[in-house]
Amino acid sequence: MRIPLEWEVGHMEQGGGAPQKFVPAVVPGAVQIDWAKAEGMPDWNWEDNFKAYRWMEDCFWVYRTRIPKTAVGAGERLVFRCGGVDYRYEVRLDGRTLYAYEGMFRPFELDLSEYADAGGALTVVIDPIPKAPDGEPDSRQEAARSCKPPVSYGWDWHPRLVPSGIWDETELTLEPAARIARAEVCYTLSEDLLTARITVDAAAAEDIVAAAAVARKSAAGKSAASTTTAAAASTPASKTAGTLRFRLFAPDGRPALETTELSETLTLQNPALWWCNGYGAPNLYRWELLLEKDGRVLDKREGTVGFRKIALTMNPGTWEEPEDFPKSRSRAPITVTLNGVPIFAKGSNWVNPEIFPGVIDETTYRPLLTCARDANMNLLRIWGGGIINKESFFDLCDAYGIMVWQEFPLACNNYPDTPEYLATLESEAAAIIRRLRGHACLAIWGGGNELFNNWSGMTDQSLPLRLLNKLCYELDRKTPFLPTSPVIGMAHGCYLFMYPDGREVYQAMAGAHYTAYTEFGVPSISNLETCLAATTREKLFPLVPNDVTIAHHAFFAWSPEDSWGGIETLRKYLGEPASLEQMIEWSQWLECEGYKCIFEEARRQKPYCSMSLNWCYNEPWPTIANNSLLNYPATPKPAYYAVAAACRNRLFSARIPRFTWRPGDVFSADLWLLNDGAEGIPAGAAEAFLEYGGERHFLLRWDHPAIPANQNLAGPTLRHLLRERQAPADGGVVDGNGATDSGADCDHCAEAAPLNGLKPPEGRGRPTELKLILSAGEMSSEYRLILYLR
Amino acid sequence: MRIPLEWEVGHMEQGGGAPQKFVPAVVPGAVQIDWAKAEGMPDWNWEDNFKAYRWMEDCFWVYRTRIPKTAVGAGERLVFRCGGVDYRYEVRLDGRTLYAYEGMFRPFELDLSEYADAGGALTVVIDPIPKAPDGEPDSRQEAARSCKPPVSYGWDWHPRLVPSGIWDETELTLEPAARIARAEVCYTLSEDLLTARITVDAAAAEDIVAAAAVARKSAAGKSAASTTTAAAASTPASKTAGTLRFRLFAPDGRPALETTELSETLTLQNPALWWCNGYGAPNLYRWELLLEKDGRVLDKREGTVGFRKIALTMNPGTWEEPEDFPKSRSRAPITVTLNGVPIFAKGSNWVNPEIFPGVIDETTYRPLLTCARDANMNLLRIWGGGIINKESFFDLCDAYGIMVWQEFPLACNNYPDTPEYLATLESEAAAIIRRLRGHACLAIWGGGNELFNNWSGMTDQSLPLRLLNKLCYELDRKTPFLPTSPVIGMAHGCYLFMYPDGREVYQAMAGAHYTAYTEFGVPSISNLETCLAATTREKLFPLVPNDVTIAHHAFFAWSPEDSWGGIETLRKYLGEPASLEQMIEWSQWLECEGYKCIFEEARRQKPYCSMSLNWCYNEPWPTIANNSLLNYPATPKPAYYAVAAACRNRLFSARIPRFTWRPGDVFSADLWLLNDGAEGIPAGAAEAFLEYGGERHFLLRWDHPAIPANQNLAGPTLRHLLRERQAPADGGVVDGNGATDSGADCDHCAEAAPLNGLKPPEGRGRPTELKLILSAGEMSSEYRLILYLR
Repeated sequence: MRIPLEWEVGHMEQGGGAPQKFVPAVVPGAVQIDWAKAEGMPDWNWEDNFKAYRWMEDCFWVYRTRIPKTAVGAGERLVFRCGGVDYRYEVRLDGRTLYAYEGMFRPFELDLSEYADAGGALTVVIDPIPKAPDGEPDSRQEAARSCKPPVSYGWDWHPRLVPSGIWDETELTLEPAARIARAEVCYTLSEDLLTARITVDAAAAEDIVAAAAVARKSAAGKSAASTTTAAAASTPASKTAGTLRFRLFAPDGRPALETTELSETLTLQNPALWWCNGYGAPNLYRWELLLEKDGRVLDKREGTVGFRKIALTMNPGTWEEPEDFPKSRSRAPITVTLNGVPIFAKGSNWVNPEIFPGVIDETTYRPLLTCARDANMNLLRIWGGGIINKESFFDLCDAYGIMVWQEFPLACNNYPDTPEYLATLESEAAAIIRRLRGHACLAIWGGGNELFNNWSGMTDQSLPLRLLNKLCYELDRKTPFLPTSPVIGMAHGCYLFMYPDGREVYQAMAGAHYTAYTEFGVPSISNLETCLAATTREKLFPLVPNDVTIAHHAFFAWSPEDSWGGIETLRKYLGEPASLEQMIEWSQWLECEGYKCIFEEARRQKPYCSMSLNWCYNEPWPTIANNSLLNYPATPKPAYYAVAAACRNRLFSARIPRFTWRPGDVFSADLWLLNDGAEGIPAGAAEAFLEYGGERHFLLRWDHPAIPANQNLAGPTLRHLLRERQAPADGGVVDGNGATDSGADCDHCAEAAPLNGLKPPEGRGRPTELKLILSAGEMSSEYRLILYLR
Repeated sequence: MRIPLEWEVGHMEQGGGAPQKFVPAVVPGAVQIDWAKAEGMPDWNWEDNFKAYRWMEDCFWVYRTRIPKTAVGAGERLVFRCGGVDYRYEVRLDGRTLYAYEGMFRPFELDLSEYADAGGALTVVIDPIPKAPDGEPDSRQEAARSCKPPVSYGWDWHPRLVPSGIWDETELTLEPAARIARAEVCYTLSEDLLTARITVDAAAAEDIVAAAAVARKSAAGKSAASTTTAAAASTPASKTAGTLRFRLFAPDGRPALETTELSETLTLQNPALWWCNGYGAPNLYRWELLLEKDGRVLDKREGTVGFRKIALTMNPGTWEEPEDFPKSRSRAPITVTLNGVPIFAKGSNWVNPEIFPGVIDETTYRPLLTCARDANMNLLRIWGGGIINKESFFDLCDAYGIMVWQEFPLACNNYPDTPEYLATLESEAAAIIRRLRGHACLAIWGGGNELFNNWSGMTDQSLPLRLLNKLCYELDRKTPFLPTSPVIGMAHGCYLFMYPDGREVYQAMAGAHYTAYTEFGVPSISNLETCLAATTREKLFPLVPNDVTIAHHAFFAWSPEDSWGGIETLRKYLGEPASLEQMIEWSQWLECEGYKCIFEEARRQKPYCSMSLNWCYNEPWPTIANNSLLNYPATPKPAYYAVAAACRNRLFSARIPRFTWRPGDVFSADLWLLNDGAEGIPAGAAEAFLEYGGERHFLLRWDHPAIPANQNLAGPTLRHLLRERQAPADGGVVDGNGATDSGADCDHCAEAAPLNGLKPPEGRGRPTELKLILSAGEMSSEYRLILYLR
């Protein structure tokens, strides 16, 4: 029986006193939201209002509620159970500390039975957010000494707004003491994948074991950190509580196994395997665990299990590298091999979908993950700057066949080797691993983001990463572990359509030779309605640096130069946009083409390359410009649809050497059939057209052979002399060096329809659209390029 | 009181029976040695006699001894204590199994008091050596499923001869029950290195705790592996045994600390730090732990402790790499930083000094390690194919300031992820770490040799390496851990003067860009007396493949082509040698020059490069050809002296573009002053000469400035037109493009003294010696090159 609690929250400057004022609080949630609502503070999503929340970082916050006087009968317990408090806190009853902890990811439960008769005031006192003791200016480096997700300290798409509060499910219940204290289903698949040997790690208990109090670095800075890793693992079982019955149901609902002999290993023959999106069905078995006594069911737990084997294996071709003496090591394995099948991992980098994780629930995740599934994605990297998501995230990924690369909350900092940090990290990481290891979707553990790059400064010797490797080995060694991304062979970036060195994404990607592109981005200005959720038209157009456009990341987000807004790049290619709408359309055009280029080029490099994840998938508030595919909260940008098309298992694709062309150029493109997944492509005909100046030019027809499952096929290279209103005599030259009259004049070009704009780009002529159309039924593609008129 | 034991050994085909015959056994030792001695078998070092020992691999061996009837008084115990048995064994008393274990590196002790009255027959039954169950042909891959050092399964300098036996100190003692059960001294140095906080982990016990029996993979192949890691760590202490007194003495012998309050952390101010060879004194403090009761000393332990802080830090310049997008990770740190000072690690790769580790003792190690110290070496990599050395090895390295990179016994195989292998590895590795972690010399833990290269096939995901990282983190996290060598940035090889692609070591090394050269080799034919310890003159000259030259590695050791003997390379450079002596002299000349080139070039690449370790240092038997610096057992080859000279902290060195020259060539060399260690080089004059055709040519004088400690200085490039008997008008051209008359004829060349030989090399003219002499007092160097006459 759940006992409703009324929560209030207040703040104070020092830890010892009491708030002068309390306001109503929503749990789970965040102190910022409660206070803002009560005090009528403006929406943090609008313009730079979030700056008005800055002072809340440095307060102590106190939640309080009343534990009602409760009659606890024999065989009952009054239990306070909490999924997580962000970040450093104590739980007190009438001023007495019951529990103290640092870290938001370890749940706890407290047996309050002995206080039930009297009731009392339960308070949760939260310290100011952790910062460097020497008072650095606001920066993400402040997050380097805690396990608090660093993103909220400010990132290139996230404002500086650091949540505090009870952020996960919290309840007070009066419940039978006889209950299921532990339930976990583990299995081992045989080599041939035909037999699953299942063990049920379960225990019934008369007594609820309160999580042992964890001494912590106190607010005063005194160090007394230690962890309860071992204790939490060994909840004692009482044999008298009743009988535990385990039932397993197949994906179609039919019973598969039932037993009360939980100490024995169960055998399931021919399990329906769990597959990722695009490679098969994400088959899930449902299990129930019942605690029975005298014919009654006293308690019940349930969950799902997906039978699959995941490994990271060497990418073909990497064992042959390096060739020369003196000879270093080979590259690291990064091919996700699922049930023995090498997967081409297509997906994205997931970031927090809200600034305040306390408001996230299943309704936050579902539209975002539905979009990911519909965009043919099969893997999401949960970037280490953010939170560990709530259970419903993983449940949905299990159900949708989306594999999860879960990083621990470390990013772009040099996390220290101090005993205090290591103790907190050990406690948090162990809780995270125990919670997630049973999910079928969990494919990779990652230590954190870009920790081996010079802007972070960690190395293979850094103890936090050695610790995470150790914990993952101890608690979940069947799941691969990466210390960070990128490791040797993988690459991140760039995040622009035109690289800082002047190359376009087309040239950079064609020359790249990596096993996995685990981050890359092409920015655009956000959808109009998203922009208008952040500010007014007046502040958006013309796009210039101001408090709002800077705060919402159109300028200076990543480098001192114009970054995500990309207005200078637009001017270079297309000239001065005539309107806000045109500016957005142009910007999103580049994002679409850039992302198609990268996803498709990465796929062409298969099997040496086996993974392509763009930066980033979503965003936690309305940005004005960003690399994301979806605007806040879950609104697809055009790039989302472009990426969805580029990630279709079977695709007619072109490698295009550059974005801009002129009349007289010989246009060229290498044609490919890309094929992922479990099915081949039958023999067929594919055609290529070029559309410009109002005309469609037939270039070639390729009668391709059948292609086996999971293999690409390189096709012909097409060539075409760009000449206005004049179909070339020979539509295309296949794999030859033809088309020699590239220097020919072109008098008709001026007649093509120019793209609108206030003025054309300097020194380039007026831009018009050049469209490459690849036609092969459902595998068809289009690429929109620029043809400059004289 | 030590009770002497008489040992015998015999063998049988099946595990269940008893040997038909026993012969006297020496403990510690090896069954092969005992049996060979008793049966008059020929010396395994001579020719291919070792092949006659092959059958011994597949027997069960039984050691037996008699425990005499012993009166064990009150407060006494009869204890059997053994340092290690190689490899899978059971200890039985009158047929009853007291202990069973797999692995040679975990010591054990057994309390036999209850059997003392009756005495009895103690047997140690050893299984056949571990092999793959499917009966592969003899190969080093057979070692892939055990923790037995793989080298003895045959390597390119080691015969196939696999030891079995009690290989470390073993004793039966009647001793007081009140004794010191555990004693370990640990410390933490403050950041400023001025304070050592010392903890003494010690316990006195009334009861000896016998190592818990470790179930093991039985001879029948049934798996029941588990480890005693946890149990061994928690020897219970009895408070009644007496008082423990700890004393610490400074390197000069004066008392530094004394206490009986062992639960408290002790503080030592201004400890004299331990430094490696060439950077300071290897200061060691001596400690004593006394168990006292009623004024008597009941037991005593002692040891040494060296206060130092070791880290692997990033090599300067590596954080800037890689530069380009898409961007991968930076290289791994490999600069050994000792007490905050970056060390240029100079040394070698140590291999087993004997085929049978049971015969190794301090007298084996001392001459070898004295030579290493005298050769200016400061680090030895203990290659993972071999054993973990005995205590005296580490004691000597502590005393000599030789840092130890200790690899676990894994090499060039794909060690499996099976629970059985992981359990054995965990038990062995934990024992190894606990034994060695207190040594000042212990600088790096390494997972094993070349495991990330394609001939091994392990990856970052391999569980054995994740396990070793975990164990080192848990038990000794202050010591850096490398999963293998090479890791990213480091390189191995090549092992030839002339690379397989035709480059000489001179060109290959000048073009290499690595952080550490942790293996490289140049082979030579062994010293004459070593060759004659292996076979007769007749089988050595002319050097052709025969049973003996192949078995002792002159041919086909490494590749199907002529390898360590290098006779084809000699013919190419110098022609047909006229005698055995000349062949050896020529061969060792190339080894000397090749090694000087690599060590000095690696030093020139400092600080980007920070380590240079040749392959290999020593050898376990008389090879006929090898890359080693010392022949068996501890006889320096000329290359030893060349390397010793190249590793002097302060050195006048030349980068020479190639080995062979012709009259008319412009000889050139880049001059450098190389400087490692704690002292600078004062300003001074350095001179260069070239000696050929019986004349010495003065080339240049370089008045170099003073150089700070630990920094090199690039000097001028000298150039000289090679012309017989005619000193050039201008001795040297500094850093210019001068000396244009390189095409000039040279009529006098024929008058230079040719090197002897049966016939000169084909198409090259007759070789004479060209000597570059760099003169700068103690920093002087010489390089011997070839000048071909017409």
